[in-house]
Order: sequence, then C-alpha cells, then structure tokens
Amino acid sequence: MDDENTVFIGSKETMNYVQAVMMQFNDTDEICIKARGRAISKAVDVAEITRQRFVEDAEITDITTDTEELDRDEGGTVNVSSIEITLSK
Amino acid sequence: MDDENTVFIGSKETMNYVQAVMMQFNDTDEICIKARGRAISKAVDVAEITRQRFVEDAEITDITTDTEELDRDEGGTVNVSSIEITLSK
Repeated sequence: MDDENTVFIGSKETMNYVQAVMMQFNDTDEICIKARGRAISKAVDVAEITRQRFVEDAEITDITTDTEELDRDEGGTVNVSSIEITLSK
Repeated sequence: MDDENTVFIGSKETMNYVQAVMMQFNDTDEICIKARGRAISKAVDVAEITRQRFVEDAEITDITTDTEELDRDEGGTVNVSSIEITLSK
C-alpha cells in the first residue's frame, strides 16, 4: 500500500493517531496502520477506537504480523515484531 | 475454541509463553493466543518467535481484535482492546 495511506504508530498519545486515521479517511477508503515492538498494542487501540467510536462504517479487513531485523546502535541486530492493520470503509 | 488450547498472555517473560505454546502443540495442531491491553505486543512476539524459531511448520492463520468493557475497581467501566491470534501447524 502507498505510504500516503499509512499511519505509523510511535510514541505520541493514542488519540493523535486516531485523528490522523480519521483525516486520511477523507481522502481514501483504505488505511494501513503500522507499528513495531511495544507500539503494537497502541496500533490495535487506534484501530479499535476509530472503528467503534468515530468511523462506524470502517472495519478491519486484514491484520498481518512479521519479524523485522533492526540494527542496534551498539552493533549487531535485534529482532522486533511488527503489525500491519488494514482498516477499510 | 476450547480454553484448553488457549494461551493467555500476562505479565510473565515472553519466553514462558513461547514454551507454553510449544507444549500445547504436542497435543493439538491449533492454538489460540489471547491478550488484552499492553500485553498485546507480547502476544505478537510470542506468535512470531514460536513460528520463526521453534515450530517452523506453524503459521498464523487468523488474527482478530476486539474491544472489551471491563469493570474498574473505582466503579464504572473502561474499554480495553484485545487480540486473538490463531497459530496452526
């Protein structure tokens, strides 16, 4: 999916990302929410809050997980889980 | 799915749950990993570590999320996201 239609979940408040998703739904009917590591829980919150409270015709049409190998500052690599949640209306 | 074939993710170390999943795979070919709130990230780790490192013929066949309404100790309710990951071999 186009990066334009993707919301990356980071360390901001959950509701910031819910707002970002809602704004993107003005331009497109399908949005991908992506997160890694501990932000995965927040990604699920963002998807659930959006569809339950704000965009009631939206539904989760796909969820995939993966393992990504990231470089560590100290050298070497570390494995981190990731999630992609597709929300469609 | 039967509660017997379910692993609930809580506050223990990730590898405890990976071990629990591997042990259950001795008895069944399909396991459900369930978590709520911040444990959701750990649930994805457990599924990913199990299938990438330990049970290589296992794959994630379904992921669903939901919102659960829990009672608070102080009264009232709070909404918490939940996830169910089905791992099959």
